[in-house]
Amino acid sequence: MLIIAEKINIMSKTIGPAMRERNAKPVQELALAEVAGGARALDLNLGPGTKDGPAMMEWLVKTVEEVVEDSIQLCLDTKNIEAMEAGLKVVTKHKPMINSTNADIEVLDKYMPVAAMYDADIIALAMTSAGIPRDCNERLENAAMIMAKAMEHGVGLERIYLDPLVLPIGVAQQDAMEVVETIRQFQMLNDPPMKSVVGLSNIYNGTPKELHSRMGFTFLAMLAAAGLTAAIADSLDAKLMAVVKTVEVLKNEMLYAASYLDDILVRV
Amino acid sequence: MLIIAEKINIMSKTIGPAMRERNAKPVQELALAEVAGGARALDLNLGPGTKDGPAMMEWLVKTVEEVVEDSIQLCLDTKNIEAMEAGLKVVTKHKPMINSTNADIEVLDKYMPVAAMYDADIIALAMTSAGIPRDCNERLENAAMIMAKAMEHGVGLERIYLDPLVLPIGVAQQDAMEVVETIRQFQMLNDPPMKSVVGLSNIYNGTPKELHSRMGFTFLAMLAAAGLTAAIADSLDAKLMAVVKTVEVLKNEMLYAASYLDDILVRV
Repeated sequence: MLIIAEKINIMSKTIGPAMRERNAKPVQELALAEVAGGARALDLNLGPGTKDGPAMMEWLVKTVEEVVEDSIQLCLDTKNIEAMEAGLKVVTKHKPMINSTNADIEVLDKYMPVAAMYDADIIALAMTSAGIPRDCNERLENAAMIMAKAMEHGVGLERIYLDPLVLPIGVAQQDAMEVVETIRQFQMLNDPPMKSVVGLSNIYNGTPKELHSRMGFTFLAMLAAAGLTAAIADSLDAKLMAVVKTVEVLKNEMLYAASYLDDILVRV
Repeated sequence: MLIIAEKINIMSKTIGPAMRERNAKPVQELALAEVAGGARALDLNLGPGTKDGPAMMEWLVKTVEEVVEDSIQLCLDTKNIEAMEAGLKVVTKHKPMINSTNADIEVLDKYMPVAAMYDADIIALAMTSAGIPRDCNERLENAAMIMAKAMEHGVGLERIYLDPLVLPIGVAQQDAMEVVETIRQFQMLNDPPMKSVVGLSNIYNGTPKELHSRMGFTFLAMLAAAGLTAAIADSLDAKLMAVVKTVEVLKNEMLYAASYLDDILVRV
């Protein structure tokens, strides 16, 4: 399970000011903590603001690359394609990931060539600007369009992470199991199976803070049983990360040993 | 999710002596605590010893029936069919459950008539005395035999809980996902879907005690995503029971409210 750490985000009260002031140290410390927690990719989220986008993404990529080991992927998270390209241009050893395209034809025609040019993995939301997908079937139709456009633009399907779009439990309770089923169906769209990703925090958005961790790790275990391969999640949440490792053991992706939880903090 | 509490067991160091001495109070207190924790059925486990079986099961059923509300199922757990019948005979208002038959023809021909006679639900292990099932397919073949024999003896399929047999993670790590897939496939054997049950503690048998709760609730969430309907588990484990409720919310089986965890202890 690829955990993409979610905390480097301009919207964050704690790290947002450091990003705006180009204060490297707090950003680098957070990046290292996220990796120590077990993340193998770091989301770098510029948020909705776009005017300073390209310069900030360039700075952010360089700042994080300076300190984290080469195997960690950098997940560039912005709706501003200039900022995306400015970041991709300066990535050196770290494998980049684009976060994200949706399934609109015109958006795919813009992002897939960028993914191809920079050899980037790409998160693709199985939704269009026409609205929230109603069920598993609508998500699968959108995934088919994403895959067609990836092939058209020369992006290998193994570089696509299909995102079913998780809705908050308080908003669309009946949708959570649609997402679980969608993850299962995504895999059947190709052989080898398509990869998938969720923004895990979406499920507990709007719920009291004391429910977040449990609802997150419970849903993650359910999604993992259905075949989820990646999640944007809080790698600083030790309970969540312990469940991630337990899932990996139960799925026989990591060898069971009585001590399997012990090395969570020694991966760096 | 039907949780069948597992603690009333002759093998237990704490409650076993009370059972042998026909000391009702500790047994009744444990039964009430298990229900308070969220169990809707109570396993009454006589263990391998058989000589005192019928008298002990009769006493145990009467003792527990005296204190727990009528809606709680009693799950009679013994390999001694005389003890099973002695218990079933004295059940009054509580719906009984037989734990368990396996898929051997001669065992099914013995237990299914008993289930029919006493209107009991029955847990049926999808294995034969020939040995541990190797994979999902062997379990499905055994399930088919169980269903055929149930129909032959007039036991409604809605009263069968198919048990795939969970093996310890340290013994058969590759088998855990076979069990998850088996739970999914079990449902497709009938419409309405077949019910299923696991002995959850099997997964962590032989692992250090500090791993038990997390491995149990993680596996339970994975199985629930695949459609598991019941589990023999420790209803005194508050973390496990909180995950059970979270699963129920995520599966839209219980309405989400910010306070959904609060009433775990007020069900009695």
